[in-house]
Amino acid sequence: MTELVGNVLVGQSGGPTSVINASVAGIVTEALNHACIEEIYGGLNGVLGILQEELIDLASESQQQIRALRHTPGAALGTCRYKLKKQQDFERIIDVFKAHNIRYFFYLGGGDSQDTADKIAKLAQTQGYELRVIGVPKTIDNDLAVTDHCPGYGSVVKYLATAVREMACDNEAMGQGDLVSIIEAMGRSAGWIAAGSSLAKRRDHPHDPPHIILLPEMPFNQQKVLDEVRRILKRDRFCLIVVAEGLVDADGNYLAADAATDAFGHARLGGAGDALGEIIESNIPGVKVRVARPGLIQRSAAHCASKTDSDEAFLAGQAAVRAAIAGETDKMVTLVRGETDHYTCETGLVPLGDIANGVKKLPREWINEDGVSMNFQFLRYVQPLIQGEIVVPHDNGVPNYARLDRMAVDKSLPPYEV
Amino acid sequence: MTELVGNVLVGQSGGPTSVINASVAGIVTEALNHACIEEIYGGLNGVLGILQEELIDLASESQQQIRALRHTPGAALGTCRYKLKKQQDFERIIDVFKAHNIRYFFYLGGGDSQDTADKIAKLAQTQGYELRVIGVPKTIDNDLAVTDHCPGYGSVVKYLATAVREMACDNEAMGQGDLVSIIEAMGRSAGWIAAGSSLAKRRDHPHDPPHIILLPEMPFNQQKVLDEVRRILKRDRFCLIVVAEGLVDADGNYLAADAATDAFGHARLGGAGDALGEIIESNIPGVKVRVARPGLIQRSAAHCASKTDSDEAFLAGQAAVRAAIAGETDKMVTLVRGETDHYTCETGLVPLGDIANGVKKLPREWINEDGVSMNFQFLRYVQPLIQGEIVVPHDNGVPNYARLDRMAVDKSLPPYEV
Repeated sequence: MTELVGNVLVGQSGGPTSVINASVAGIVTEALNHACIEEIYGGLNGVLGILQEELIDLASESQQQIRALRHTPGAALGTCRYKLKKQQDFERIIDVFKAHNIRYFFYLGGGDSQDTADKIAKLAQTQGYELRVIGVPKTIDNDLAVTDHCPGYGSVVKYLATAVREMACDNEAMGQGDLVSIIEAMGRSAGWIAAGSSLAKRRDHPHDPPHIILLPEMPFNQQKVLDEVRRILKRDRFCLIVVAEGLVDADGNYLAADAATDAFGHARLGGAGDALGEIIESNIPGVKVRVARPGLIQRSAAHCASKTDSDEAFLAGQAAVRAAIAGETDKMVTLVRGETDHYTCETGLVPLGDIANGVKKLPREWINEDGVSMNFQFLRYVQPLIQGEIVVPHDNGVPNYARLDRMAVDKSLPPYEV
Repeated sequence: MTELVGNVLVGQSGGPTSVINASVAGIVTEALNHACIEEIYGGLNGVLGILQEELIDLASESQQQIRALRHTPGAALGTCRYKLKKQQDFERIIDVFKAHNIRYFFYLGGGDSQDTADKIAKLAQTQGYELRVIGVPKTIDNDLAVTDHCPGYGSVVKYLATAVREMACDNEAMGQGDLVSIIEAMGRSAGWIAAGSSLAKRRDHPHDPPHIILLPEMPFNQQKVLDEVRRILKRDRFCLIVVAEGLVDADGNYLAADAATDAFGHARLGGAGDALGEIIESNIPGVKVRVARPGLIQRSAAHCASKTDSDEAFLAGQAAVRAAIAGETDKMVTLVRGETDHYTCETGLVPLGDIANGVKKLPREWINEDGVSMNFQFLRYVQPLIQGEIVVPHDNGVPNYARLDRMAVDKSLPPYEV
């Protein structure tokens, strides 16, 4: 392997998470260790900013700010849902890379973003431009193929389990046999997030809330759910339901459909909780329904992030740099769980093509027979991912998050229309 | 003053907060210091359980659990929104007190609850039954008269400011001039909570989110708000709005009316955020609106409670016991802010009649001229209330909250129909 001398470019893509910035911190920290890396640039707003040659100098940021990225939510470089459409877009990306001697490209994102990275890697190869492309997984949805789990997932689940446990204290105090409380969880096509809320239950207390979890994997059976709600109201005087936003009926229609779709053709949802609430209120007389829809709050709640998740996100960033330096390209870092009972996690590498647009489904055999709760196999899987708390510094009573200086790198190419 | 020997009864009423249990801890802790207090009972579900003679022995709870109440959300004794309707109800309460030699009654709640406490105190007096009744303020709404602020308010505001600051990181990363993010805050008739979200702004950064705060005090001016949204989208590429659930239009109609009302005749709301979102989406072409409605999550987020708030709630409980021991009755504990620049807080006492059903309005002169942001006078008022963080013990990655044994006190009266 020849040593490849050149510059690093990092980009963030897709929806932010509580820990995607931790991966940037891992990349920058590790990149500084390697003499063959000359400059460390960030691309603003994912490929959108890269197309427009909007690069910033990450090496000039203070160490303090880079360290603070480890607990800062959002995406400090900005992100996008822009899909590279035409061949011309891809060629422009390579032109920008050539103009700034980018030899190492790290792209943080979910399935669509890894697909983009894959295409960029292959085009560079075709053009004979030596470039090492390593993807870093990121998604609260936990639906990337191959990797055991995705950075971002543990933190959203920790937030949701915390919210459920706290909401349960509130609801239990209020419940007089008539209170149904619904929390709408994110989760477009898979129930990973909603399922994770079962961590709110104490060990060996299967009756603890959430009493009912409604997953996109299990078509909504109105009569069965209403019966279950009645049974739980009788038993516990309140009923706490977690519903995934992507809940569908027996015909595969969203319980709450919203005509809007994003740039990748995915339905944009919202309102499954309200729709469910209306069904319950109109079918169970005298019941009071309260619906909470934390929405984007759940994926940005860094003050409640999982330390395990944050540390693994950092590790994945470091691993990406090491892999690239070692000559790897067109790969994505994966998280690999150890075989032992005691949870351990290492990083691995897989071809980007294995990831791109693949989807990891929540295993059917991890859902209990009742269809509305999770079994010990799921709990054994998810429990380690939320361990440990992050201590976020506070300023005047509110978390204090990193804010990059974003020193712009001079442009050298003509403007490009996107 | 004669020493009054007898038992204590504590009850919780109305909506739970993150710190109402801290007041119970304060009462129990202080009551143990006084030899004239023989038993310390809790009434389950406020007056509802007291009517039904459902008392538990708080002195038999472990010290560990009582200490843990200081960081446990919900209402550990249960609560109710039941309004004592008929004279017979009030007389039954006194009968229960007599049956259990209750001589000290501490009632934790908002305006309606303090009204109930006032009536109980007066009836006992009429009957010549020696009873000391002290109310302890509690409400996230911060709308009780006389007291400088209410336990529970600081924590909900700290939660909301945290959520706004985190959401801003997320939105800023996503914003491409088209993203409007709405957080619906609780607040039925007053904008105290929504206004408090302005604490998310950094000092001397008036353009920080929340960009727009819509208060129930300021009738919704659609054109003005739409203009403001357009202006902010241009300036910041995203626009974060906090809207109080009780937002009204120029005619005083709720933006999102829900026919349901609670036992006290208050409208039960929900949906101001969605209603606003629809207005924005249908008037500003191409804009994407995301609405978060944390709902009850915001008042139960004890993992994000204000230490100042929790400590003051505990202090208010202690002060209630000391006042009763000193011979006071038919009073409520208030929080009294010191006159100095450096924030200090002591407790005071006011007649319950001064509180009952009074409402403290958000001063109009604390709202900026633009009508959608708060000025330095409000910030000076609210800033101290969110200072300090609570360290909540975690069990397996999720907060570990108190759970009372609830050892029942033997009933001695015939059953009572409510």
